Amino acid sequence: MKQARKSLLCAAALALALPAFAQSPSKAEEMAIKYRQAAFTLMGAHFGALAAMAQGKVPFDAKVATDNANLAVQLSRLPYSHFIPGSDKGSTNALPKIWAEKDKFEAKAKTMQEAMVKVDEAAKTGNFDNFKAAVGETGKACKSCHDDYRKQP
Amino acid sequence: MKQARKSLLCAAALALALPAFAQSPSKAEEMAIKYRQAAFTLMGAHFGALAAMAQGKVPFDAKVATDNANLAVQLSRLPYSHFIPGSDKGSTNALPKIWAEKDKFEAKAKTMQEAMVKVDEAAKTGNFDNFKAAVGETGKACKSCHDDYRKQP
Repeated sequence: MKQARKSLLCAAALALALPAFAQSPSKAEEMAIKYRQAAFTLMGAHFGALAAMAQGKVPFDAKVATDNANLAVQLSRLPYSHFIPGSDKGSTNALPKIWAEKDKFEAKAKTMQEAMVKVDEAAKTGNFDNFKAAVGETGKACKSCHDDYRKQP
Repeated sequence: MKQARKSLLCAAALALALPAFAQSPSKAEEMAIKYRQAAFTLMGAHFGALAAMAQGKVPFDAKVATDNANLAVQLSRLPYSHFIPGSDKGSTNALPKIWAEKDKFEAKAKTMQEAMVKVDEAAKTGNFDNFKAAVGETGKACKSCHDDYRKQP
Protein backbone atom coordinates (compact mmCIF):
# COMPACT_ATOMS: atom_id res chain seq x y z
CA MET A 1 0.00 0.00 0.00
CA LYS A 2 2.78 2.32 1.00
CA GLN A 3 4.58 1.30 -2.19
CA ALA A 4 1.42 1.81 -4.27
CA ARG A 5 0.83 5.25 -2.81
CA LYS A 6 4.42 6.11 -3.51
CA SER A 7 4.02 4.93 -7.11
CA LEU A 8 0.82 6.90 -7.46
CA LEU A 9 2.52 10.00 -6.12
CA CYS A 10 5.42 9.40 -8.47
CA ALA A 11 3.05 9.01 -11.42
CA ALA A 12 1.20 12.19 -10.48
CA ALA A 13 4.47 14.04 -10.08
CA LEU A 14 5.62 12.71 -13.42
CA ALA A 15 2.37 13.74 -15.09
CA LEU A 16 2.73 17.22 -13.69
CA ALA A 17 6.40 17.37 -14.51
CA LEU A 18 6.22 15.95 -18.01
CA PRO A 19 4.70 18.88 -19.88
CA ALA A 20 7.31 21.20 -18.40
CA PHE A 21 10.03 18.67 -19.03
CA ALA A 22 8.90 18.18 -22.62
CA GLN A 23 8.49 21.88 -23.35
CA SER A 24 11.29 23.64 -21.54
CA PRO A 25 14.29 21.95 -23.19
CA SER A 26 12.60 22.21 -26.56
CA LYS A 27 12.11 25.96 -26.03
CA ALA A 28 15.73 26.30 -24.85
CA GLU A 29 16.93 24.29 -27.84
CA GLU A 30 14.89 26.36 -30.27
CA MET A 31 16.29 29.53 -28.77
CA ALA A 32 19.84 28.16 -28.94
CA ILE A 33 19.37 27.28 -32.63
CA LYS A 34 17.88 30.69 -33.39
CA TYR A 35 20.67 32.47 -31.52
CA ARG A 36 23.57 30.66 -33.20
CA GLN A 37 21.97 31.01 -36.65
CA ALA A 38 21.59 34.75 -36.06
CA ALA A 39 25.25 34.99 -35.02
CA PHE A 40 26.36 33.09 -38.14
CA THR A 41 24.12 35.27 -40.34
CA LEU A 42 25.68 38.49 -39.03
CA MET A 43 29.21 37.08 -39.06
CA GLY A 44 28.65 35.89 -42.65
CA ALA A 45 27.40 39.32 -43.71
CA HIS A 46 30.37 41.17 -42.19
CA PHE A 47 32.90 38.58 -43.30
CA GLY A 48 31.29 38.79 -46.76
CA ALA A 49 32.07 42.52 -46.83
CA LEU A 50 35.71 41.71 -45.97
CA ALA A 51 35.91 38.95 -48.60
CA ALA A 52 34.55 41.32 -51.26
CA MET A 53 37.41 43.72 -50.46
CA ALA A 54 40.00 40.96 -50.40
CA GLN A 55 38.77 39.77 -53.80
CA GLY A 56 38.92 43.28 -55.25
CA LYS A 57 35.16 43.43 -55.84
CA VAL A 58 35.04 46.47 -53.56
CA PRO A 59 37.94 48.90 -53.07
CA PHE A 60 39.98 48.20 -49.95
CA ASP A 61 39.28 50.74 -47.22
CA ALA A 62 41.22 50.12 -44.00
CA LYS A 63 38.67 51.94 -41.82
CA VAL A 64 35.65 50.07 -43.25
CA ALA A 65 37.60 46.79 -43.12
CA THR A 66 38.57 47.38 -39.48
CA ASP A 67 34.98 48.17 -38.49
CA ASN A 68 33.72 44.99 -40.18
CA ALA A 69 36.57 42.84 -38.88
CA ASN A 70 36.18 44.09 -35.32
CA LEU A 71 32.51 43.17 -35.36
CA ALA A 72 33.22 39.83 -37.09
CA VAL A 73 35.74 38.94 -34.34
CA GLN A 74 33.12 39.54 -31.66
CA LEU A 75 30.43 37.69 -33.60
CA SER A 76 32.78 34.74 -34.17
CA ARG A 77 32.82 34.15 -30.38
CA LEU A 78 29.04 34.00 -29.97
CA PRO A 79 27.65 30.86 -31.62
CA TYR A 80 29.55 27.99 -30.04
CA SER A 81 28.16 28.01 -26.49
CA HIS A 82 24.74 27.62 -28.12
CA PHE A 83 25.39 24.14 -29.51
CA ILE A 84 23.69 22.81 -26.38
CA PRO A 85 22.79 19.12 -25.99
CA GLY A 86 19.63 18.25 -27.89
CA SER A 87 19.84 21.22 -30.26
CA ASP A 88 20.73 18.95 -33.19
CA LYS A 89 16.97 18.52 -33.70
CA GLY A 90 14.57 20.97 -35.30
CA SER A 91 15.25 23.73 -37.79
CA THR A 92 19.03 23.37 -37.98
CA ASN A 93 21.68 22.35 -40.49
CA ALA A 94 24.05 21.32 -37.70
CA LEU A 95 25.03 17.65 -38.07
CA PRO A 96 24.72 15.37 -34.98
CA LYS A 97 28.44 14.66 -35.48
CA ILE A 98 29.08 18.02 -33.76
CA TRP A 99 27.94 16.61 -30.43
CA ALA A 100 29.70 13.27 -31.03
CA GLU A 101 33.06 14.96 -31.56
CA LYS A 102 32.71 18.21 -29.65
CA ASP A 103 36.49 18.66 -29.17
CA LYS A 104 37.24 18.49 -32.89
CA PHE A 105 34.35 20.82 -33.66
CA GLU A 106 35.51 23.34 -31.07
CA ALA A 107 39.09 23.14 -32.35
CA LYS A 108 37.82 24.11 -35.80
CA ALA A 109 35.83 26.96 -34.29
CA LYS A 110 39.00 28.17 -32.52
CA THR A 111 40.98 28.06 -35.78
CA MET A 112 38.37 30.28 -37.40
CA GLN A 113 38.23 32.67 -34.42
CA GLU A 114 42.02 33.07 -34.43
CA ALA A 115 42.10 33.59 -38.19
CA MET A 116 39.43 36.29 -37.83
CA VAL A 117 41.57 38.11 -35.23
CA LYS A 118 44.38 38.15 -37.82
CA VAL A 119 42.02 39.73 -40.37
CA ASP A 120 41.28 42.44 -37.82
CA GLU A 121 44.98 43.00 -37.09
CA ALA A 122 45.84 43.16 -40.80
CA ALA A 123 42.96 45.55 -41.53
CA LYS A 124 44.22 47.91 -38.82
CA THR A 125 47.71 48.06 -40.36
CA GLY A 126 46.20 48.82 -43.78
CA ASN A 127 48.49 46.26 -45.45
CA PHE A 128 46.32 44.84 -48.24
CA ASP A 129 48.46 41.74 -48.90
CA ASN A 130 48.37 40.68 -45.26
CA PHE A 131 44.66 41.45 -45.14
CA LYS A 132 43.98 39.37 -48.24
CA ALA A 133 46.00 36.42 -46.90
CA ALA A 134 44.23 36.55 -43.53
CA VAL A 135 40.78 36.69 -45.19
CA GLY A 136 41.81 33.65 -47.28
CA GLU A 137 42.81 31.70 -44.16
CA THR A 138 39.56 32.59 -42.44
CA GLY A 139 37.53 31.54 -45.47
CA LYS A 140 39.31 28.18 -45.47
CA ALA A 141 38.56 27.73 -41.77
CA CYS A 142 34.86 28.48 -42.38
CA LYS A 143 34.71 26.00 -45.27
CA SER A 144 36.55 23.27 -43.38
CA CYS A 145 33.98 23.39 -40.59
CA HIS A 146 31.01 23.61 -42.98
CA ASP A 147 32.31 20.61 -44.96
CA ASP A 148 32.47 18.46 -41.86
CA TYR A 149 29.66 19.70 -39.66
CA ARG A 150 26.96 21.35 -41.76
CA LYS A 151 24.22 19.56 -43.67
CA GLN A 152 25.03 19.93 -47.35
CA PRO A 153 22.30 21.67 -49.36
CA MET B 1 9.74 50.45 -89.36
CA LYS B 2 12.60 52.14 -87.54
CA GLN B 3 10.22 52.80 -84.68
CA ALA B 4 8.98 49.22 -84.77
CA ARG B 5 12.52 47.83 -84.71
CA LYS B 6 13.31 50.14 -81.82
CA SER B 7 10.23 48.91 -79.98
CA LEU B 8 11.18 45.32 -80.68
CA LEU B 9 14.69 45.92 -79.40
CA CYS B 10 13.25 47.62 -76.35
CA ALA B 11 10.92 44.70 -75.75
CA ALA B 12 13.79 42.21 -76.15
CA ALA B 13 15.98 44.25 -73.83
CA LEU B 14 13.15 44.42 -71.33
CA ALA B 15 12.56 40.66 -71.57
CA LEU B 16 16.26 40.04 -70.92
CA ALA B 17 16.41 42.63 -68.19
CA LEU B 18 13.24 41.66 -66.35
CA PRO B 19 14.34 38.41 -64.71
CA ALA B 20 17.43 40.11 -63.32
CA PHE B 21 15.38 43.13 -62.32
CA ALA B 22 12.79 40.95 -60.66
CA GLN B 23 15.32 38.76 -58.85
CA SER B 24 18.13 41.05 -57.76
CA PRO B 25 16.17 43.44 -55.56
CA SER B 26 14.24 40.52 -54.14
CA LYS B 27 17.51 38.80 -53.18
CA ALA B 28 18.83 42.06 -51.67
CA GLU B 29 15.56 42.56 -49.80
CA GLU B 30 15.59 39.00 -48.46
CA MET B 31 19.14 39.46 -47.25
CA ALA B 32 18.26 42.78 -45.62
CA ILE B 33 15.32 41.17 -43.81
CA LYS B 34 17.45 38.23 -42.68
CA TYR B 35 20.23 40.53 -41.50
CA ARG B 36 18.06 42.85 -39.45
CA GLN B 37 16.12 39.93 -37.93
CA ALA B 38 19.43 38.33 -36.91
CA ALA B 39 20.57 41.60 -35.32
CA PHE B 40 17.29 41.91 -33.38
CA THR B 41 17.52 38.25 -32.29
CA LEU B 42 21.00 38.72 -30.83
CA MET B 43 20.17 42.11 -29.33
CA GLY B 44 17.03 40.60 -27.77
CA ALA B 45 19.03 37.72 -26.29
CA HIS B 46 21.65 39.97 -24.73
CA PHE B 47 19.15 42.58 -23.59
CA GLY B 48 17.12 39.69 -22.15
CA ALA B 49 20.12 38.74 -20.02
CA LEU B 50 20.30 42.34 -18.78
CA ALA B 51 16.56 42.51 -18.10
CA ALA B 52 16.75 39.26 -16.08
CA MET B 53 19.39 40.89 -13.86
CA ALA B 54 17.44 44.15 -13.57
CA GLN B 55 14.33 42.18 -12.54
CA GLY B 56 16.29 40.21 -9.93
CA LYS B 57 15.73 36.88 -11.71
CA VAL B 58 19.50 36.51 -12.00
CA PRO B 59 21.99 38.01 -9.52
CA PHE B 60 23.48 41.32 -10.70
CA ASP B 61 27.09 40.89 -11.83
CA ALA B 62 28.67 44.10 -13.11
CA LYS B 63 31.20 42.26 -15.31
CA VAL B 64 28.59 40.03 -16.98
CA ALA B 65 26.22 42.99 -17.32
CA THR B 66 28.95 45.12 -18.92
CA ASP B 67 29.85 42.36 -21.41
CA ASN B 68 26.21 41.94 -22.41
CA ALA B 69 25.52 45.67 -22.52
CA ASN B 70 28.60 46.41 -24.60
CA LEU B 71 27.52 43.85 -27.16
CA ALA B 72 23.90 45.04 -27.04
CA VAL B 73 25.04 48.61 -27.76
CA GLN B 74 26.89 47.46 -30.87
CA LEU B 75 24.01 45.23 -31.98
CA SER B 76 21.54 48.09 -31.49
CA ARG B 77 23.32 50.01 -34.26
CA LEU B 78 23.10 47.25 -36.87
CA PRO B 79 19.51 46.72 -37.97
CA TYR B 80 18.34 50.11 -39.15
CA SER B 81 20.34 50.56 -42.36
CA HIS B 82 18.74 47.28 -43.48
CA PHE B 83 15.21 48.66 -43.67
CA ILE B 84 15.85 49.23 -47.38
CA PRO B 85 13.06 50.21 -49.79
CA GLY B 86 10.93 47.22 -50.76
CA SER B 87 11.92 45.11 -47.75
CA ASP B 88 8.45 45.47 -46.24
CA LYS B 89 7.47 42.43 -48.34
CA GLY B 90 8.26 38.80 -47.63
CA SER B 91 9.04 37.11 -44.32
CA THR B 92 8.96 40.18 -42.11
CA ASN B 93 6.90 41.63 -39.27
CA ALA B 94 7.95 45.16 -40.19
CA LEU B 95 4.88 47.30 -40.95
CA PRO B 96 4.87 49.35 -44.21
CA LYS B 97 4.33 52.38 -41.95
CA ILE B 98 8.10 52.26 -41.27
CA TRP B 99 8.84 53.40 -44.81
CA ALA B 100 6.00 55.93 -44.81
CA GLU B 101 7.32 57.67 -41.70
CA LYS B 102 11.03 56.87 -41.78
CA ASP B 103 11.99 59.90 -39.65
CA LYS B 104 9.71 58.96 -36.78
CA PHE B 105 10.89 55.34 -36.98
CA GLU B 106 14.53 56.35 -36.91
CA ALA B 107 13.92 58.73 -34.02
CA LYS B 108 12.52 55.79 -32.02
CA ALA B 109 15.55 53.70 -32.99
CA LYS B 110 17.83 56.49 -31.75
CA THR B 111 15.98 56.69 -28.43
CA MET B 112 16.55 52.97 -27.93
CA GLN B 113 20.22 53.17 -28.95
CA GLU B 114 20.86 56.04 -26.52
CA ALA B 115 19.04 54.22 -23.73
CA MET B 116 21.18 51.12 -24.38
CA VAL B 117 24.35 53.22 -24.04
CA LYS B 118 23.09 54.32 -20.61
CA VAL B 119 22.63 50.65 -19.62
CA ASP B 120 26.25 50.04 -20.60
CA GLU B 121 27.45 53.09 -18.63
CA ALA B 122 25.44 52.09 -15.56
CA ALA B 123 26.64 48.46 -15.75
CA LYS B 124 30.27 49.68 -15.76
CA THR B 125 29.77 51.73 -12.59
CA GLY B 126 28.20 48.70 -10.88
CA ASN B 127 25.37 50.85 -9.50
CA PHE B 128 22.38 48.51 -9.54
CA ASP B 129 19.72 51.21 -9.15
CA ASN B 130 21.04 53.19 -12.13
CA PHE B 131 21.39 49.96 -14.10
CA LYS B 132 17.82 48.92 -13.32
CA ALA B 133 16.44 52.34 -14.30
CA ALA B 134 18.40 52.34 -17.59
CA VAL B 135 17.21 48.83 -18.45
CA GLY B 136 13.64 49.98 -17.75
CA GLU B 137 14.01 52.97 -20.08
CA THR B 138 15.49 50.75 -22.83
CA GLY B 139 12.66 48.24 -22.46
CA LYS B 140 10.14 51.07 -22.85
CA ALA B 141 11.93 52.28 -25.99
CA CYS B 142 11.82 48.74 -27.48
CA LYS B 143 8.12 48.41 -26.69
CA SER B 144 7.24 51.82 -28.05
CA CYS B 145 8.77 50.94 -31.43
CA HIS B 146 7.24 47.45 -31.48
CA ASP B 147 3.79 48.85 -30.66
CA ASP B 148 3.94 51.24 -33.61
CA TYR B 149 5.98 49.45 -36.23
CA ARG B 150 5.81 45.68 -35.72
CA LYS B 151 2.98 43.40 -36.83
CA GLN B 152 1.15 42.28 -33.70
CA PRO B 153 1.10 38.49 -33.23
